Amino acid sequence: MSTIGFIGLGIMGSPMAVNLARAGHTVRGWNRSPGRAAALVAAGGQEAASIADAVRGADVVITMVPASPQVEAVAYGPDGILAHAAPGTLFIDHSSITPQTSVDLAAAAADKGVRVLDAPVSGGEAGAVEGVLSIMVGGAAEDFAAARPLFDAVGTTVVHCGPHGAGQTVKAANQLIVAVSLQAVAEAVVFLEKSGVDLDAALEVLGGGLAGSTVLTRKRANFRDRDFTPGFKLELHHKDMGIVTDAARAAGVPLPVGAVAAQLIASAVARGDGGLDHSGLLRGVELLSGG
Amino acid sequence: MSTIGFIGLGIMGSPMAVNLARAGHTVRGWNRSPGRAAALVAAGGQEAASIADAVRGADVVITMVPASPQVEAVAYGPDGILAHAAPGTLFIDHSSITPQTSVDLAAAAADKGVRVLDAPVSGGEAGAVEGVLSIMVGGAAEDFAAARPLFDAVGTTVVHCGPHGAGQTVKAANQLIVAVSLQAVAEAVVFLEKSGVDLDAALEVLGGGLAGSTVLTRKRANFRDRDFTPGFKLELHHKDMGIVTDAARAAGVPLPVGAVAAQLIASAVARGDGGLDHSGLLRGVELLSGG
Repeated sequence: MSTIGFIGLGIMGSPMAVNLARAGHTVRGWNRSPGRAAALVAAGGQEAASIADAVRGADVVITMVPASPQVEAVAYGPDGILAHAAPGTLFIDHSSITPQTSVDLAAAAADKGVRVLDAPVSGGEAGAVEGVLSIMVGGAAEDFAAARPLFDAVGTTVVHCGPHGAGQTVKAANQLIVAVSLQAVAEAVVFLEKSGVDLDAALEVLGGGLAGSTVLTRKRANFRDRDFTPGFKLELHHKDMGIVTDAARAAGVPLPVGAVAAQLIASAVARGDGGLDHSGLLRGVELLSGG
Repeated sequence: MSTIGFIGLGIMGSPMAVNLARAGHTVRGWNRSPGRAAALVAAGGQEAASIADAVRGADVVITMVPASPQVEAVAYGPDGILAHAAPGTLFIDHSSITPQTSVDLAAAAADKGVRVLDAPVSGGEAGAVEGVLSIMVGGAAEDFAAARPLFDAVGTTVVHCGPHGAGQTVKAANQLIVAVSLQAVAEAVVFLEKSGVDLDAALEVLGGGLAGSTVLTRKRANFRDRDFTPGFKLELHHKDMGIVTDAARAAGVPLPVGAVAAQLIASAVARGDGGLDHSGLLRGVELLSGG
């Protein structure tokens, strides 16, 4: 069993920390804004007073925060993780951030003898609560092997994708495909409806062929009923499209349909739809079609 | 059992005619270029000497030809189907053509007392041979009901989508989603590879989440191995993107990612890749990324 300092008890982090505590690990949780540790404490964990307090004596530190700036804020500086973590500590970052930030973090941590894995997840709040997340991991193979029992406590599909940053790269590719798929289905739905077709019949037959996708299955009711309760918010997907756009530029790979999807998500956020589920891309297609 | 005049014994039409003959129907097949009726004759069907010969005495006429001009060529004129079909004949067009051509054909046929269903299919040559096509049908409900035993002889997912043209509209939406999905996966694959990620590991985890799709499953080996043996040719998908582009313009629905995918397919055809499987869109992304 591990002693874990868990940083970031938000919508995703809190249930992940709970599942680690339930699996028998000693979990000390910290969150920037207070009052987020109740579920963890109820599951047998503890609330830490500071990052230093969470990290002290831990053999594993886990972070789950919104984006690159927050990872840098909790990792670096005199009050940060690297200032307090003992040499040999395993630092697992579940946040979805730019691959380059993960690479830089791993290098800075190595100077302190701390081993880092980037391990972004997909599956949303429901996946976090149920402990069935998909986890895409970058870093050294031996560190992946050491972290495996912890991953298995929060997820079911756990894959080592390559060196530092590779987990973030795969998560970025995931968000690219999801964004484009949502936009394609949104365009198809508006086209079908404006053409006078029975939408339910159409989506049934589309789902059975090469056009079938998890987006079509899981988001079908959202599209049909215009129910854009998140789910996964457009403003978060907007952040992720920034990551994949930057990472692909760095890799020298233009993304023609990905770039258009990124612009349309940016437009949705600019119009004030950032709080909607990402299936709310449908609204943009309707707007382009005269409302 | 029906007496069927079957026009168009190509890659798709021949196995469909065979399956109808095997189901016990009397099938007289005709093809513009000769020598295509061997499989049908072996299955108990007959070769017709002309469209008039195929249509004479038939209670059902079925067409399966490449595009709108070929449908118009076999339907209209003194040698065409409408000139020879008896009033009351059911005319099932399995071709993938513009919705407007289907609407116009239904109107012209109604003047002769001939009832038309547009019934484009998806599932490819393998689906045609195995009799497991998806069939998207537009036209009158009572004609759909009458045609149902014939559809069941060639397909497994058979859906009435709405009035004349609705089948074509759904097929167009299908091709839109498939094209965009293929392009999205192609962009993700090149991005992953150029980023140094283990592609097989990445596609495994992507397939398990919201990015999962039939394209990702069925075309995975094509992308990974650069095996672009068709399958479904880019030049045919190019034709279909023309259909969906025109139909969406007519419906007043812009298709932002669909339009980009259409341009990239047009580029592939212009570069001489039209004979490749549509997963060959990957080559375009590689070209944009420096080869």
